[in-house]
Amino acid sequence: QVVESVSSKWFENIRLGGYTQLRYNRLFETNEDLTCEQCDKSLGKGKGFFLRRARIRLAGNLSKRVYAYLQFDMATAFSNSIQHGLGLKDAYFDLALNDERSHRIRFGQSKIPYGFENMQSSSNRLALDRNDAINSAAKDERDLGAFYYYTPVGIRKRLSFLTRSGLKGSGDYGMFGFGLYNGQGAGRIEQNDNLHVIARFTYPFLVGEKQIIEAGIQGYKGKYSVSLSEVNENRENLFADERVAASLTVYPQPFGFQGEYNIGKGPEYNALTNRTEEQSLTGGYAQLMYRYAGDKHTFIPFLKYQYYDGGKKFELDARSYLVRQTEIGVEWQWDKFELVGLYSFEDRNYVDGLKPVNHQVGSRFRLQAQFNY
Amino acid sequence: QVVESVSSKWFENIRLGGYTQLRYNRLFETNEDLTCEQCDKSLGKGKGFFLRRARIRLAGNLSKRVYAYLQFDMATAFSNSIQHGLGLKDAYFDLALNDERSHRIRFGQSKIPYGFENMQSSSNRLALDRNDAINSAAKDERDLGAFYYYTPVGIRKRLSFLTRSGLKGSGDYGMFGFGLYNGQGAGRIEQNDNLHVIARFTYPFLVGEKQIIEAGIQGYKGKYSVSLSEVNENRENLFADERVAASLTVYPQPFGFQGEYNIGKGPEYNALTNRTEEQSLTGGYAQLMYRYAGDKHTFIPFLKYQYYDGGKKFELDARSYLVRQTEIGVEWQWDKFELVGLYSFEDRNYVDGLKPVNHQVGSRFRLQAQFNY
Amino acid sequence: QVVESVSSKWFENIRLGGYTQLRYNRLFETNEDLTCEQCDKSLGKGKGFFLRRARIRLAGNLSKRVYAYLQFDMATAFSNSIQHGLGLKDAYFDLALNDERSHRIRFGQSKIPYGFENMQSSSNRLALDRNDAINSAAKDERDLGAFYYYTPVGIRKRLSFLTRSGLKGSGDYGMFGFGLYNGQGAGRIEQNDNLHVIARFTYPFLVGEKQIIEAGIQGYKGKYSVSLSEVNENRENLFADERVAASLTVYPQPFGFQGEYNIGKGPEYNALTNRTEEQSLTGGYAQLMYRYAGDKHTFIPFLKYQYYDGGKKFELDARSYLVRQTEIGVEWQWDKFELVGLYSFEDRNYVDGLKPVNHQVGSRFRLQAQFNY
Repeated sequence: QVVESVSSKWFENIRLGGYTQLRYNRLFETNEDLTCEQCDKSLGKGKGFFLRRARIRLAGNLSKRVYAYLQFDMATAFSNSIQHGLGLKDAYFDLALNDERSHRIRFGQSKIPYGFENMQSSSNRLALDRNDAINSAAKDERDLGAFYYYTPVGIRKRLSFLTRSGLKGSGDYGMFGFGLYNGQGAGRIEQNDNLHVIARFTYPFLVGEKQIIEAGIQGYKGKYSVSLSEVNENRENLFADERVAASLTVYPQPFGFQGEYNIGKGPEYNALTNRTEEQSLTGGYAQLMYRYAGDKHTFIPFLKYQYYDGGKKFELDARSYLVRQTEIGVEWQWDKFELVGLYSFEDRNYVDGLKPVNHQVGSRFRLQAQFNY
Repeated sequence: QVVESVSSKWFENIRLGGYTQLRYNRLFETNEDLTCEQCDKSLGKGKGFFLRRARIRLAGNLSKRVYAYLQFDMATAFSNSIQHGLGLKDAYFDLALNDERSHRIRFGQSKIPYGFENMQSSSNRLALDRNDAINSAAKDERDLGAFYYYTPVGIRKRLSFLTRSGLKGSGDYGMFGFGLYNGQGAGRIEQNDNLHVIARFTYPFLVGEKQIIEAGIQGYKGKYSVSLSEVNENRENLFADERVAASLTVYPQPFGFQGEYNIGKGPEYNALTNRTEEQSLTGGYAQLMYRYAGDKHTFIPFLKYQYYDGGKKFELDARSYLVRQTEIGVEWQWDKFELVGLYSFEDRNYVDGLKPVNHQVGSRFRLQAQFNY
Repeated sequence: QVVESVSSKWFENIRLGGYTQLRYNRLFETNEDLTCEQCDKSLGKGKGFFLRRARIRLAGNLSKRVYAYLQFDMATAFSNSIQHGLGLKDAYFDLALNDERSHRIRFGQSKIPYGFENMQSSSNRLALDRNDAINSAAKDERDLGAFYYYTPVGIRKRLSFLTRSGLKGSGDYGMFGFGLYNGQGAGRIEQNDNLHVIARFTYPFLVGEKQIIEAGIQGYKGKYSVSLSEVNENRENLFADERVAASLTVYPQPFGFQGEYNIGKGPEYNALTNRTEEQSLTGGYAQLMYRYAGDKHTFIPFLKYQYYDGGKKFELDARSYLVRQTEIGVEWQWDKFELVGLYSFEDRNYVDGLKPVNHQVGSRFRLQAQFNY
């Protein structure tokens, strides 16, 4: 894993790539008021075709010790009439502390190492959206900060294999990781004088000849400044924000399993008091999948169940959620093209100061076409 | 037209390019209140140098059957102090249904196949702005959807020749095209539960040894949600939006002609009732040009007349327009550099709820420098 | 300096590069109300890690006579929740008037040729922010316009050497330059019917074998439209905007000096009358540095003092400033990575209609990690 030499030609050092996702969510929809701000802004009434992501990524080894990663999205909504603004996703660089690059410090905006599904690229995920329980830990899974990662060379090779082989690994965010970051989420300015602190440990066990089982634990602690609505009777907006999670992945060769669960405490709107209060939170998901890799085509049917009871700190009033959702679908890969179709059954109760009663139940069929470049 | 092989090097598959246009419109201006929101935001009072477009495009064959096209603009105004935001223009991919790629499905945001001038790149157009009549069919000529295109290999070669040769063709949007799309325009979220449906047929006839005459027809149908001003007495904002157009192009070898006309119905503000109402619309343009291609320099003088009587659905209250405009100018091409100078004589009546009386007549000289990369 | 040939491969003509800066400014901070809008939006209360710049640049010779330069930033704040928008920095092209390219016309958005530190890339500057006195001449150092530059081939080589060699030159903005531009600043639409006019002359003297001393003068004249606050009792917002500056740089081999001073007149808020008025302005800076270039590491300690008494036309009410600041720090370069640490001692009085009393004094330690790609 030593970088032997770096080319003098920019195009051999830096690789440009990315992926784009087009969705349509209105088939067999039973409840047009069933929406999810964090998941997909084209769910429900009045919506149609939707560009969920249009990503361009530039990455490569700048030198033997410095690796850079830049990624921006061109389908980030600023308002209804500006749906396709630029959203910076990643702008980080890894400074290796040794030639094998097993010890690294990462500076910039990057994914915070919390959760397997959070780390996994959306281009690899089977379900269209991440689970509410773990994904509510960080806005866009990312933040600004400095992180230390340690990955022995052997583990690095294994993690790299899991991504390259089509087994949908999460990439190398360290066997062990530790970091300091702002905590308000990607693309948002820090609002308080407290940094968040995070740590994670993950290990991909080799079981038998080829089966790999990855298990991980992670936790973070910090304070979060919530955006409160006018009607909210709370005026203090700084809250404790602390979580721990466990992750388990059995890679699909051909049967696979993926599950995560987290508990913690954080801000959550309380409709009874019309205040945002510190409350406990709990939730996770479990997913079964089967990978059939044919000559030219790959099919991966999957079944996912998720549950979340807690607040979403980066939504208005730290909106309160109680979510139960079952998804059954299949991903078809053909060359640079992927198509996912899934049926989703959802029961969502989500309330804030402006909408203190809001319980939505329903189902729908969702479609996503993706191309990778 | 079979893609024989795809390189493993990203920079040989994907080509990066684009163009930038700098304008100055204030010479010999006779009426500083003569503006045009859709054409150019630097017309009239208080304006100066203006970056009309700064485009970066990434495109290429990702595999034998998948072609991708991404284009963004870096001179998209969000407000007076944010003139240079990112506007996503294209993010689509073509999935070929056969190896010759004569049958394709296009997914994503792309130009909707309505009108020759709409399809033609702004880097190739002689006049600085598109005609009001056909261009009012779609905001930024583009929308989100799925399109089927059929182009036999021989026709594809002819269309490709028309673009590459400097004859200013419109590219290959199918000899026959059919599509479904949101209908609210590029970069805007769908506002209603109706998709637009569109169809187009075009054919480039070879006349004699080299002359090519292209004729096309196209039509679409849908419903549009209009943004109404506070004073508008209409409260229902969903309107029928239907048009048909005919196009004729005689490519300049050396004399050329280009003309299009469309009729239809759609929302249009009515100053008498102070309401936006469904009304008929009609209009088009005719252009004469002559192409002198010297050793290093090419000159193309042109004369264009346009007329439009109808509404612009994507402007406030579906602003009502009655436009008569004559332009006479010349394009000078030298290497990667192009300069256009044109004299424009305009008579524009354009009214909405906030400005129910607005008849502007005048002339001015306009300059544009363009570079292609 | 003749471009012999241009490749047919896009990636050999166009070079992609850039740099990213991550900052943390809260160490040993003595006054959390000491901020500076133009310098760094993460100074003071509630702030944390901050992405100051995340740049991508595309540049190259498109043909023997046409050179293009595009640069955008992905860390431009539009609002607190949109910190990382796209800001177009440069979009210009140089049209050479002769094969040696000693005479050029530059079209588009580019740096206006006013001041040495303004021209120097932020990736090369030692201090984290530019000086207030000269940098207040142009918002983001840039504007839209057309510029003529003359640089004899010998001088061009010398200027090019100063950039490539790590001596932190400012690049080639002409030995002599002259231009017309809007004057409202980069990314802002022109607000008045007056263009700005500018001229500059700079000369890098070779002293002895290798020492180079560069001296320059520059001046501009125009009218500026100021944004006034509601409470401002002035209603006319168009003001004269005129300056002249002198620059002197002794390149660090190993000892170096850099100094600039400008005087002029322009809009400035007056707290006594609660009006923005035409006032004189004066200020500049002086910097000492020492460059130690080791085998793999380079260290450049520096000391900078700056002073400014005048308005900032592009801030609210043309905010009035009286600034005295001393900075002492060191830049460490290692490969593609740079780290700057500096101690800043500041005395800033800055007032506008909304905050007519605001005198802040304090010190802090600032850190910046930068990577170049």
